[in-house]
Amino acid sequence: MNQALDFQSIILTLQRFWSDQGCLIWQPYYTQVGAGTMNPATYLRVLGPEPWKVAYVEPSVRPDDGRYGENPNRLQMHTQFQVILKPDPGNPQEIYLKSLEALGIDPRQHDIRFVEDNWESPALGAWGLGWEVWLDGQEITQFTYFQQAGGMPLTPNSVEITYGLERIAMAMQRVHHFKDIRWSPERSYGDVHLRGEFEHSKYYFEVADVDRLRQMYKLFEAEAEAALDQGLVLPAHDYVLKCSHTFNVLDTRGAIGVTERQALFGRMRDLARRTAEAYVAQRQEMEFPWLNGSPADKAKAAEPTLPLIPRPTEASDFLLEIGVEELPCADLESAVAQLRERVPALLADLRLEYAKVQIYGTPRRLVAVVEKLAARQPDRTLVIKGPPADRAFDAQGKPTKAGEGFARGKGLRVEDLEVREIDGGRYAAAVVHEPGRGAGEVLAEALPGLVAAIKFDKPMRWNASGVYFSRPIRWLLAELGGEVAPFEYAGLISGNVTRGLRFYPPETIPVRGAQEYFQALGKQGILLDPDERKTAIQVQVQRLIAQAGGDPERMDVDLLDEVNNLVEAPTGLLGSFDKDHLKLPPEVLVSVMKKHQRYFPVFQANGKLMPYFIAVRNGDGQYIDVVTDGNEQVIRARFADAAFFIREDLQHKLEDFRAKLSTLIFQIKLGSMLDKSERIETLVKNVAPALKLTPDETKTALRAAHLCKADLATHMVVEMTALQGIMGSHYALSSGENEAVAKAIYEHYLPHFSGDALPASKPGLLVGLADRIDSLVGLFAAGMAPTGTKDPFALRRAAQGLAQALIGWNLDFDLRSTLEAAAAKMPLAVTPEVLAQVQEFIGGRMQSALLDQGYRYDIVAAVLGAQVSNPAAVSRGVKALTAWVARPDWNTILPAYSRCVRITRDQKEQYVVNPAALVEKAEKDLYAALTAAEGQSRTPGSVEDFFAVLLPLIPVINRFFDEVLVMAEDATARANRLGMLQRIAGLANGVADFAKLEGF
Amino acid sequence: MNQALDFQSIILTLQRFWSDQGCLIWQPYYTQVGAGTMNPATYLRVLGPEPWKVAYVEPSVRPDDGRYGENPNRLQMHTQFQVILKPDPGNPQEIYLKSLEALGIDPRQHDIRFVEDNWESPALGAWGLGWEVWLDGQEITQFTYFQQAGGMPLTPNSVEITYGLERIAMAMQRVHHFKDIRWSPERSYGDVHLRGEFEHSKYYFEVADVDRLRQMYKLFEAEAEAALDQGLVLPAHDYVLKCSHTFNVLDTRGAIGVTERQALFGRMRDLARRTAEAYVAQRQEMEFPWLNGSPADKAKAAEPTLPLIPRPTEASDFLLEIGVEELPCADLESAVAQLRERVPALLADLRLEYAKVQIYGTPRRLVAVVEKLAARQPDRTLVIKGPPADRAFDAQGKPTKAGEGFARGKGLRVEDLEVREIDGGRYAAAVVHEPGRGAGEVLAEALPGLVAAIKFDKPMRWNASGVYFSRPIRWLLAELGGEVAPFEYAGLISGNVTRGLRFYPPETIPVRGAQEYFQALGKQGILLDPDERKTAIQVQVQRLIAQAGGDPERMDVDLLDEVNNLVEAPTGLLGSFDKDHLKLPPEVLVSVMKKHQRYFPVFQANGKLMPYFIAVRNGDGQYIDVVTDGNEQVIRARFADAAFFIREDLQHKLEDFRAKLSTLIFQIKLGSMLDKSERIETLVKNVAPALKLTPDETKTALRAAHLCKADLATHMVVEMTALQGIMGSHYALSSGENEAVAKAIYEHYLPHFSGDALPASKPGLLVGLADRIDSLVGLFAAGMAPTGTKDPFALRRAAQGLAQALIGWNLDFDLRSTLEAAAAKMPLAVTPEVLAQVQEFIGGRMQSALLDQGYRYDIVAAVLGAQVSNPAAVSRGVKALTAWVARPDWNTILPAYSRCVRITRDQKEQYVVNPAALVEKAEKDLYAALTAAEGQSRTPGSVEDFFAVLLPLIPVINRFFDEVLVMAEDATARANRLGMLQRIAGLANGVADFAKLEGF
Repeated sequence: MNQALDFQSIILTLQRFWSDQGCLIWQPYYTQVGAGTMNPATYLRVLGPEPWKVAYVEPSVRPDDGRYGENPNRLQMHTQFQVILKPDPGNPQEIYLKSLEALGIDPRQHDIRFVEDNWESPALGAWGLGWEVWLDGQEITQFTYFQQAGGMPLTPNSVEITYGLERIAMAMQRVHHFKDIRWSPERSYGDVHLRGEFEHSKYYFEVADVDRLRQMYKLFEAEAEAALDQGLVLPAHDYVLKCSHTFNVLDTRGAIGVTERQALFGRMRDLARRTAEAYVAQRQEMEFPWLNGSPADKAKAAEPTLPLIPRPTEASDFLLEIGVEELPCADLESAVAQLRERVPALLADLRLEYAKVQIYGTPRRLVAVVEKLAARQPDRTLVIKGPPADRAFDAQGKPTKAGEGFARGKGLRVEDLEVREIDGGRYAAAVVHEPGRGAGEVLAEALPGLVAAIKFDKPMRWNASGVYFSRPIRWLLAELGGEVAPFEYAGLISGNVTRGLRFYPPETIPVRGAQEYFQALGKQGILLDPDERKTAIQVQVQRLIAQAGGDPERMDVDLLDEVNNLVEAPTGLLGSFDKDHLKLPPEVLVSVMKKHQRYFPVFQANGKLMPYFIAVRNGDGQYIDVVTDGNEQVIRARFADAAFFIREDLQHKLEDFRAKLSTLIFQIKLGSMLDKSERIETLVKNVAPALKLTPDETKTALRAAHLCKADLATHMVVEMTALQGIMGSHYALSSGENEAVAKAIYEHYLPHFSGDALPASKPGLLVGLADRIDSLVGLFAAGMAPTGTKDPFALRRAAQGLAQALIGWNLDFDLRSTLEAAAAKMPLAVTPEVLAQVQEFIGGRMQSALLDQGYRYDIVAAVLGAQVSNPAAVSRGVKALTAWVARPDWNTILPAYSRCVRITRDQKEQYVVNPAALVEKAEKDLYAALTAAEGQSRTPGSVEDFFAVLLPLIPVINRFFDEVLVMAEDATARANRLGMLQRIAGLANGVADFAKLEGF
Repeated sequence: MNQALDFQSIILTLQRFWSDQGCLIWQPYYTQVGAGTMNPATYLRVLGPEPWKVAYVEPSVRPDDGRYGENPNRLQMHTQFQVILKPDPGNPQEIYLKSLEALGIDPRQHDIRFVEDNWESPALGAWGLGWEVWLDGQEITQFTYFQQAGGMPLTPNSVEITYGLERIAMAMQRVHHFKDIRWSPERSYGDVHLRGEFEHSKYYFEVADVDRLRQMYKLFEAEAEAALDQGLVLPAHDYVLKCSHTFNVLDTRGAIGVTERQALFGRMRDLARRTAEAYVAQRQEMEFPWLNGSPADKAKAAEPTLPLIPRPTEASDFLLEIGVEELPCADLESAVAQLRERVPALLADLRLEYAKVQIYGTPRRLVAVVEKLAARQPDRTLVIKGPPADRAFDAQGKPTKAGEGFARGKGLRVEDLEVREIDGGRYAAAVVHEPGRGAGEVLAEALPGLVAAIKFDKPMRWNASGVYFSRPIRWLLAELGGEVAPFEYAGLISGNVTRGLRFYPPETIPVRGAQEYFQALGKQGILLDPDERKTAIQVQVQRLIAQAGGDPERMDVDLLDEVNNLVEAPTGLLGSFDKDHLKLPPEVLVSVMKKHQRYFPVFQANGKLMPYFIAVRNGDGQYIDVVTDGNEQVIRARFADAAFFIREDLQHKLEDFRAKLSTLIFQIKLGSMLDKSERIETLVKNVAPALKLTPDETKTALRAAHLCKADLATHMVVEMTALQGIMGSHYALSSGENEAVAKAIYEHYLPHFSGDALPASKPGLLVGLADRIDSLVGLFAAGMAPTGTKDPFALRRAAQGLAQALIGWNLDFDLRSTLEAAAAKMPLAVTPEVLAQVQEFIGGRMQSALLDQGYRYDIVAAVLGAQVSNPAAVSRGVKALTAWVARPDWNTILPAYSRCVRITRDQKEQYVVNPAALVEKAEKDLYAALTAAEGQSRTPGSVEDFFAVLLPLIPVINRFFDEVLVMAEDATARANRLGMLQRIAGLANGVADFAKLEGF
């Protein structure tokens, strides 16, 4: 590795390599771009049907990535090497890997992985699916199959390969900071670029004038429009790029709020789309001159012929392997699940018997093995119902035209028709004897459909076959009894060749039969069975945790599933990082390890984080030191990055960030996050008394409300949103706020999900309530209520969290009045209907939560019907009522009460009881019992208390109904009786709507 | 040549070549630049003392060069390959030429030349000296030694090599249009760039919004300032570049007038200077980290030792050759002239006798040959004057202290002092006998001074020696009697090796003695003697003209001198161009051929231009077809360019361009060219009657005045200013103006120089007068009168042309009143003093013109003194007076008149003659004769008429003086006599101031 290429030689080597691959060598663009994708050689040329192969260097400017030259591998300008292959050459990953070898990287010595990473540029109206390529944990390349650009679907699709040259050079030269990269024999990267990193970072973060940049943006946009109006594609594109860069600088200066961002993105996307359309129109007008004459096109292979269909004579194993470029985790999981369902279903459909179906999967292959698959379908006889017998045959029993037609349609002679009794009628029937077909034959027909039926959330196209899959399918292995089971799909023909683990020769392995297949892959360390693999990983990870002195029980199992789907041949490795980094908040370190790198953090038994991590590589243990070293470098840079953000943030007090919230738009009609934060503060002040906060708690809550959103403007949270609240809490403490305030800032986001911890402090609870209520009222009023699966502001979670917290605290709370208080402060009118919708929405969330807990629908509905505005009470009421309903005497309790309700339910009038006019004893008794019940002291909403007053009434009620005619002729008597029953019915007000109960 | 590299391979080859030469390989810049020079890798890195070697591609954007893709080799974006070598490696030309060989260009098969071309970027405060490199007449590279950047002198100097890759590719691939360049095996240059050329041209010329671009410019400028205020060099530089590009676009849109241009340039220069200074300060603060440790530095050769000084025993030839990189024409001429004067002077100084000095020169060498140079100086005896004898010796004749001191000072014993009579006094004297020194010895001392004494208008430095010369000196050959005459200069040591013609092996030739030297160079076809070379060229060119059917007599001899200084071994070649181009105005074709390419145009005997040209290559006649073909390609592109301009221009009427004159500032206080044009029109109207134009002529003159400046706004004239008037005239005709108007437009610039043709029509004359008078009055009033050698507005030529025209037409004209009329219309106040200065200035130009014609100073002064305001009259007067002065009786004529003047000259009073008081006969006679003379009818200003009345007076005057005492006691008599003499003196008023004549 001492002889590793210098930086400029890396470039020269790649240029030569891709030139030899038939690429046109292009130059970096003459205006600042964030990526080589924006160079018209990519952005425009991937559009339309014409072939195009190009490669070029692109120094890419991303103001936001500036670190003043301090971060080991984050730079405001990094050097991309961009390759576009259009159409897909069929083996772009392999060509790419060869280019790494050309650079002198021996893939066998490293852990090279394709890790799902999709790409989207809202500003360009473009997206694609693909991977980051990891070299020992370091992202060195983006590999993408473009699906859309300029808002247009792409046919053919282009393969985009974007090398990050600094990272490759660092890995090759084994240096730990970009500035130490040898650029040329005499000069280092730092020599020529370090000062620029500092200066541009300073310019972008501190000096660029926001007002002037805004003006520039407008001028660029107007020029882009003007150019487009004249059909000038390239000048328009240039100005779109200038808009984009200017936008990025503004963003780095923290000057772009949410609304403005959306507006600017929308306009850029529109311009980009129009530019793209104009380009395609232009090429069309030129009659797509590159469509013909490409020598590659002319060398089209002759149509391939399929192998013969195998005809086994007895039951034998069937093996199917769909070889793919690395599948995303979720897609792998989903595909395995689908196959587990579909393969048996298919075999049943095909009437093929078998002993056992096994489905396996790794990122590079989906495998189905059917043991002892029958050689053929059983024969069968089918009776096909025809026209009614009396229409198929005339009175003489001779076939009619209808009868003849039916026979002809089934390929029978008319005399072969039979008359059968079917479904109680008599029908002409064709009785067909169908001999079973060979398994090979039916599989050949069915297999394309099997593969095609595997569906993914975000499928892609890659070649001229036009089929969709999660990632490109690159080979198909299908064998029946060791013979190729031929079929064609996605431009491929099935064969008997599998591929091994990447970089572990041999690359391709012909196999005969399932056993040979398992042996071949097993020899390479590939664990086909996801469960087996998972266990293997867990064992290794826990062993390494223990080895580092950590607590294996604290292994993060969430991560296990994901990691399991990232490797074929897992080997764990233990890496370490500088203890100094432990000064950073552990949440930050853990987030970085898990989210960015899929590393398992190592905790001591006491829960303290240790300066280690476990990575799981794909491959064996050879060269593990090199791989470990690479991974350590990566995490070092990642932590340095976090440290940079935090250091930057700590230069200000948390409160100082509040002002910046005015540039973050919460929602266009509801103002900025600062406005929201102020509303929360007001609401907290309003609600605190009702929640009976102590003066100290009130003070804490108010301060926390004041600061609760401030961390959204900090660098660390901008970078990793998941750290909101966590950073706010940290920064609060370092800004001199007291513990309680810091805690409340953290807690106001609790619970994050159903089942998560609840705020432990009342201030945290209160701020969280206020925050959620503000969101619910405001966003409903702004017309942003969730619909269908759309819930961009996560209002469902907000409502659920709100109820959960109140229930958890068992705190009585008047939602209705709080909603009204929130409504009063909104910058837009909130109608009573909207408030009712919010209330109903929260009720709906409570309902599903309670149902999830196993409560009966009718009970939940009854309590919610009366107490929706007080979640804690709902919870208590449901629990209590459930107990009551379960009582053996329930069927004596409910009917007594329900009679009172039912008979009065349709009365429009509220009758006043005149005790003097009571005549009958039973009614006098009822009156006495009623007034006694009404006189009882009850906890509002309490189910227990309700029944405590109802129970003594029951015999009296029953006697009353037995002895007294309620609907008496005499109007006075009738009014008195109805009035009393109305009052009995009213005893349940605010407790439950018993009419909703089953059996009412 | 079929295997010529494609475009991308040319780039890859150059990158590899220069990487192998130790250059750092850099990338194109990320903002639009007009040239690789603006990339900070050049612009900043050439500053300060640190070494730097870099090479990179730079797609360079020059909006003004956009041709919609139509011109064969002019593009709005062309691809530079830029190399910086700092410090000078000593042989950069040779390395460069090797790079061409690496590309597959065999220099032996082509005419490769270094043609003077200096570089200056006002916007960057930078300049350098160097060449265009021509490949068969095509400029393929700029080669420059930087002298200054950011307003700072550069030490060390950098060598900048800028390849024009399109032109190199066209030459290598032998294609005739850039679009046909093979870029990659599959794609042509046109495939990927043609549409862009069209679109960007259209954007720059037609679409770019002037107002918005002006706003952008201001914003960029403000950001540059803001960055500089923070010491951010690179961000500031980026914005300066953006300013520069925006400026270029505005300029292409024709939106930048002269004043604005100067103002913007000034501001850009200022920013560039501050950026450069900040960069140097920054590097200084970093302690110039690259100064140490460059391996190249460490390998410093040991101090070289000079060869032994030759000691010939008898007279022998001395040969000196100063080997240089190609000298500019004028410098070569000047250096030869200086050596012709200095070598003999030096030898005289050195007291070395010789038979003959010959001085030769070619672009690559300056040669002095001294035949039979004495082997040594003659001995000599010097008598050195000491103190007076009586102070050097006491009364006893013993030496005093003074005497002793003197002797000691001269290295003599005191007894060796002599007493000598010197300058009439007696002094102590030291008589020193000085033996002659050897020629080798004195030359060794004197030669560095000889070379250093050669001075150039624009000298340069190139290496650490710090010496200045026209271009780098690369070898020194000095021999005395065939032995090396050693000396050191410019870091070189003289030797006995010369170099031959480039590419004609052997490259270096050791020679012994002048004869061998002449033979060696002669063998390579080098003609050392400029006169011989000139004749050889003339003979060849005339032969080729005849061969083409042209008239050899019409060969352009002005060009001969220049061409002569461009080659060492001239070989003429005859090229042709498409007859179609002859449709262009011949002046345009001739200008292009002569100015851009130094081609001799071919005219028929009738003066008609033929579709041929003669070029003179450096080298022999082998491969002349290739060279001819290359040259023909070049002229084809040049003509296409002119055709493009003219076609563009012809889309509008000439009058339409007038409006654009408002954007061309004449001078800041005097408004735009449109203002000037309107003033000319008014002045023409005022003056027409005085010049007695017919109504038709007046109409023509007014129309011509209206249109006379319009062509300044046309593309063709913007491109080649020398075509002003010529294009105006052409465009007038094609716009439907009549012949007379077109002619006047052309003629108003006549005469261009002293001796040039004059306007043939009165309208042309008049418009020219008005134009010049407007300039003179306006610019003098604006304080722009010429001073010393500074005459930026060429006012000397204006004044001279004005006088020449009036004299040529012999038209009487009242300058004074015209100046006043012009003054009245100026936008600023014009004082009488200013008008007097203008008048005097014009008089001064007339004076020198007349003196140049051989007229006597006193006569010119006399006439000018009286008639300065009427040039034609001055001319007539001088001619007439010269004749009179030449008369044999002149010494009787002048005294008579001069007595009258002299005696009255000092009288303050104007005496009135009272005839009644006349007493003496002689005075009465005089009075009678005087009144008779005064009564004669005379043409105003006529010298003849003056003498016609004076001659009869002469005897009367003489008698009067003989007989009458002028200064009589009697006051009345005296007054009468003085009065008469005053009136005689006054007869010459308006004719001449005879007092200025010799002998007066």
